[in-house]
Amino acid sequence: MAAAKPENLSLVVHGPGDLRLENYPIPEPGPNEVLLKMHSVGICGSDVHYWQHGRIGDFIVQKPMVLGHEASGTVVKVGSLVKHLQQGDRVAIEPGPREIDEFCKIGRYNLSPTIFFCATPPDDGNLCRFYKHDANFCYKLPDNVTFEEGALIEPLSVGIHTCRRAGITLGNKVFVCGAGPIGLVNLLVAKAMGAAQVVVTDLSASRLSKAKEVGADFVLQITKESPQEIASKVEGLLGCKPEVTIECTGAEAAIQAGIYATCPGGTLMLVGLGSEMVNVPLVHAAIREVDIKGVFRYCNTWPMAISMLASKSVNVKSLVTHRFPLEKALEAFETSKKGLGLKVMIKCDPSDQNP
Amino acid sequence: MAAAKPENLSLVVHGPGDLRLENYPIPEPGPNEVLLKMHSVGICGSDVHYWQHGRIGDFIVQKPMVLGHEASGTVVKVGSLVKHLQQGDRVAIEPGPREIDEFCKIGRYNLSPTIFFCATPPDDGNLCRFYKHDANFCYKLPDNVTFEEGALIEPLSVGIHTCRRAGITLGNKVFVCGAGPIGLVNLLVAKAMGAAQVVVTDLSASRLSKAKEVGADFVLQITKESPQEIASKVEGLLGCKPEVTIECTGAEAAIQAGIYATCPGGTLMLVGLGSEMVNVPLVHAAIREVDIKGVFRYCNTWPMAISMLASKSVNVKSLVTHRFPLEKALEAFETSKKGLGLKVMIKCDPSDQNP
Amino acid sequence: MAAAKPENLSLVVHGPGDLRLENYPIPEPGPNEVLLKMHSVGICGSDVHYWQHGRIGDFIVQKPMVLGHEASGTVVKVGSLVKHLQQGDRVAIEPGPREIDEFCKIGRYNLSPTIFFCATPPDDGNLCRFYKHDANFCYKLPDNVTFEEGALIEPLSVGIHTCRRAGITLGNKVFVCGAGPIGLVNLLVAKAMGAAQVVVTDLSASRLSKAKEVGADFVLQITKESPQEIASKVEGLLGCKPEVTIECTGAEAAIQAGIYATCPGGTLMLVGLGSEMVNVPLVHAAIREVDIKGVFRYCNTWPMAISMLASKSVNVKSLVTHRFPLEKALEAFETSKKGLGLKVMIKCDPSDQNP
Amino acid sequence: MAAAKPENLSLVVHGPGDLRLENYPIPEPGPNEVLLKMHSVGICGSDVHYWQHGRIGDFIVQKPMVLGHEASGTVVKVGSLVKHLQQGDRVAIEPGPREIDEFCKIGRYNLSPTIFFCATPPDDGNLCRFYKHDANFCYKLPDNVTFEEGALIEPLSVGIHTCRRAGITLGNKVFVCGAGPIGLVNLLVAKAMGAAQVVVTDLSASRLSKAKEVGADFVLQITKESPQEIASKVEGLLGCKPEVTIECTGAEAAIQAGIYATCPGGTLMLVGLGSEMVNVPLVHAAIREVDIKGVFRYCNTWPMAISMLASKSVNVKSLVTHRFPLEKALEAFETSKKGLGLKVMIKCDPSDQNP
Repeated sequence: MAAAKPENLSLVVHGPGDLRLENYPIPEPGPNEVLLKMHSVGICGSDVHYWQHGRIGDFIVQKPMVLGHEASGTVVKVGSLVKHLQQGDRVAIEPGPREIDEFCKIGRYNLSPTIFFCATPPDDGNLCRFYKHDANFCYKLPDNVTFEEGALIEPLSVGIHTCRRAGITLGNKVFVCGAGPIGLVNLLVAKAMGAAQVVVTDLSASRLSKAKEVGADFVLQITKESPQEIASKVEGLLGCKPEVTIECTGAEAAIQAGIYATCPGGTLMLVGLGSEMVNVPLVHAAIREVDIKGVFRYCNTWPMAISMLASKSVNVKSLVTHRFPLEKALEAFETSKKGLGLKVMIKCDPSDQNP
Repeated sequence: MAAAKPENLSLVVHGPGDLRLENYPIPEPGPNEVLLKMHSVGICGSDVHYWQHGRIGDFIVQKPMVLGHEASGTVVKVGSLVKHLQQGDRVAIEPGPREIDEFCKIGRYNLSPTIFFCATPPDDGNLCRFYKHDANFCYKLPDNVTFEEGALIEPLSVGIHTCRRAGITLGNKVFVCGAGPIGLVNLLVAKAMGAAQVVVTDLSASRLSKAKEVGADFVLQITKESPQEIASKVEGLLGCKPEVTIECTGAEAAIQAGIYATCPGGTLMLVGLGSEMVNVPLVHAAIREVDIKGVFRYCNTWPMAISMLASKSVNVKSLVTHRFPLEKALEAFETSKKGLGLKVMIKCDPSDQNP
Repeated sequence: MAAAKPENLSLVVHGPGDLRLENYPIPEPGPNEVLLKMHSVGICGSDVHYWQHGRIGDFIVQKPMVLGHEASGTVVKVGSLVKHLQQGDRVAIEPGPREIDEFCKIGRYNLSPTIFFCATPPDDGNLCRFYKHDANFCYKLPDNVTFEEGALIEPLSVGIHTCRRAGITLGNKVFVCGAGPIGLVNLLVAKAMGAAQVVVTDLSASRLSKAKEVGADFVLQITKESPQEIASKVEGLLGCKPEVTIECTGAEAAIQAGIYATCPGGTLMLVGLGSEMVNVPLVHAAIREVDIKGVFRYCNTWPMAISMLASKSVNVKSLVTHRFPLEKALEAFETSKKGLGLKVMIKCDPSDQNP
Repeated sequence: MAAAKPENLSLVVHGPGDLRLENYPIPEPGPNEVLLKMHSVGICGSDVHYWQHGRIGDFIVQKPMVLGHEASGTVVKVGSLVKHLQQGDRVAIEPGPREIDEFCKIGRYNLSPTIFFCATPPDDGNLCRFYKHDANFCYKLPDNVTFEEGALIEPLSVGIHTCRRAGITLGNKVFVCGAGPIGLVNLLVAKAMGAAQVVVTDLSASRLSKAKEVGADFVLQITKESPQEIASKVEGLLGCKPEVTIECTGAEAAIQAGIYATCPGGTLMLVGLGSEMVNVPLVHAAIREVDIKGVFRYCNTWPMAISMLASKSVNVKSLVTHRFPLEKALEAFETSKKGLGLKVMIKCDPSDQNP
């Protein structure tokens, strides 16, 4: 109660443009929860968006909300009913479902309308010193997986969920549209699932250079090409139309290019989110049986991601380009907003700022 | 060789609005083919379209073409390499692939770019007295399946292919948009696959009355509702959003309604073909993981259709509302053009005009 | 606490051959539970087995256990966190998972090693007046579904889970081996999923007569045929080898017959449980790519079962051949043990003994 | 025409133990065929078996038969109807289907009862100088894929077909039983499909050392362990039960071990062929929903194999341990029979003995 109480430094958004570091009380875990000492939390585009605009679509910041949902930490306290975790366990955190409804029962809990999600109003995130979470959605990290890799499982999960729903398999040619973090995790996962060749497109040469570095077989910088021209260039690079296109920008022209580019019987994944209404050549997809599928976050990805990271089947470390201690979180957000680098990582544990 | 040779009366389209009954030579089957005496051939919307417009999209009638592709007949001559058929066998005819390419090898021969298709330029159809066809794509009809049922396997196949790709299963709620022949075969197949309740919408009260007659649980006549209102009414009738929506009109507003109507994790099938570009709320489908899939004709449907017809699991007989002998084919086409009834059947065998 | 408290009459097994009707306290529902006034509970073979032998495999009755798990009732009290149910709701009861583990997360909660299961030691069943249950696994029954239909969802679920895992689809030929309750629900579900023809085999003529009554296309009484002979007769009846065989007896010879009978690329489902080790022609299945799959109970079946029952897509009512009030439960068990009829239903509500 | 006619040296088996190099006429390709100058042909265990025993099961060498079916060569003559190949193209050869039956139509042509197969009686193989083959089943090799890699696509295809049917996906733990060529290609493909860790067992330390070399995460030499003990050791190495077990030995004890080892909901693939009847704990698989699936050769694997080889996603080169010119084929077969090394490659082109 006395002077020395900088208990739980937390990064809180109060509204558009209003981001503050504040002291929150340390929460008490419930019987099925664990209390975590946070270690590494990545900044996601949605975090920046809530800070800048105070909302994403219908999700509006109506009371102060802690940001952050790409996270890992260490168990410091264990709820009375928790069996599979103990104090000292290093874990990665999955934002999980709140209730057992029919979506949960069939294994698609990401579609549950009441799903809990860190740093989506009204749920607090984990950009803080101490955070409590449903123990069933905390996954123990093996010794050879770092905290930052653990935090990166969240964006990696988008790639896993997307590539799995796309049915990527051995020898596939894949077109990834957009070379931001989500484009890159899709590139990584597609290759890990056996894709033979991946072409990545973007407007930015520097992003494409990163894509090349992490494994793209071909990159293509887009300037003024029409959707049909983009499709044609992609086919030229791959030697055939791709079986799978993963659209990560949300731009109408890119969705159109994805439809034109994908081979008959193939799949177009919609990952990027753009305008509510888009004008698209749907019949061109339909009569060639190009399936169009979206993704909403992910489900059932943490265990396989940990398995992949532990076996070194996928390398996500190079995605991290900047690191800041939690105390400098505002500076970290400025960096992320400017689009510098790829993933900005915030280090929440003052006694351990290692990867 | 002499005078009396009205051998092979055939219904031939020469160009827009130019439809003629002409005598063609009787073809000679190749080693893998059979010669068929045609019995029943249904008129499809595409037949009428070629007659009216001389083309469908890029498929242009550049030389006289025999119409007809919903057909059944009797084997009268067998090619030298044919083993599974013999003279006298009653068969249903599937328009089949021309070459063994990679689409054929994976069992999706409908996507083969060189596919043969009766009555699609430049391939002749089978609205005639005698017709030869690849024996591998002629399927023997059991005694308890009529010639007309055999001919109806073609439109029924669109329903099978669609419902199968939609993954319809036990207890599903299904929304079928459009109560024409394709809407109705989808209704029939959805029920046969275990759908619990199907709602059918249309602009026409008489079509909806037919839908009700063949098994729709609910029908809904559309007047001026917005896509969202249609979706809302469908949900009201079913008590929940449908898992599967089958869009058979091609209308932009109907596709929009289909996206709004379908439940999270569900599937929207695009069967009707409309404008090349459509304006749709794609992100609304994507973030709820409503998959959007089209169909191109069908593949691997004849054997299961015959099995269903033989076991009386599905009743297609009531789809036939008009019958004309081949000699009156022009009258038959006029009837079909006017949209009277549902399926107009042309009887090609002067000695047997039975169903 | 006083005299008049015959509160919660329950049917309790104390050990092999020791079955008693006893008064139990009425339980208090937890925050996520509901208290149910039980209405109809079917007797399952496993109930009889616990009574006769005090164990099934490694599951041993070590303390008194209430029997019964095919059940329906009425909500009389609602836990504080329950939202989707209210007092007076008529519900069917699914024995559900106890913890959210990785099997639950992927939608296969039946494989969870800690699954709760009514009337499997040490968990009590619901052959009693009042019973509390996880509200998430109580499913509201529509007005047009009876309590007995609700109770029959449990055995029906075995059929749904089996046929779904078998991938039964339109026009399939199916071989069901065994005409007991489980064989019959598989027959019913296979037909509802579009199977064209089902042949059912059994040793008992009376069981086969029931199979015929509920929809078998062919029945075959087995006497001394070898497995190959059975396979050959099945093929003779269907006109081809079945795509799916559902083995419900557990007998070694029947499993062998199932392997010989199933067509290349087909599926053999193992539902019946027999000896730990069996001698089978596994290579004959392997080189014809006949997949062999078992089932453990079911998952995700109640909603679709209710949907089917409400739409009258499947008729289970004729499975009930005997009814007894709870007070006469011992007599009911004797009837079931003798193998008379099919399903014996116990009526737990003294004020409502209707179906 | 004259004296100098060492036209088409071919390796011919005449019966058990009777293997001869003989001159055959150079065949003339039919309209859909190509004539190939053979380059590299691997020796398969079945080739050795036909030589030693004159039969495999019901397939009996009743007239002299050319051996060899793991093959690549160069097109020297093109049939009149062939469009996609031309003289000089380097190709890999898939033994393909003979007729278009229902198995072909659904994309499972390997199950077609009339399938053609090189070097399976009565069909000749391609261990010769010149060989003609269905052009649709000759696949053009990119410049960066060697002839030997092309020949190795055949055994690699067994791995692809098996791992694909097993549904191997990201992060899977896999148990491969047997470290011969088939075990190793399964290991390679499993890793390429994203398996996190693979454990390989065998009796032979030298085989296991090769397995380790080509990528096994763990190897386990079997001595006298019981099936349960093997299962337990596999679980110990992987840290959990594997999702997929690939049994490549056919030994009864190994199949048993596979059943015990595989995790609930997992899959046991039967690739090795042993006794007709085996004694197995089938119920242990069934109640844990461990699916048991066999493979018969492969289908639809060449294009993806070529895609993988071209992109260097898989490395098969190290499987080749011995090379012999066609003239020394008998010596090559002796080497293969002794079990020395892994894959013995026969070089059929006297002017090019390179890999």
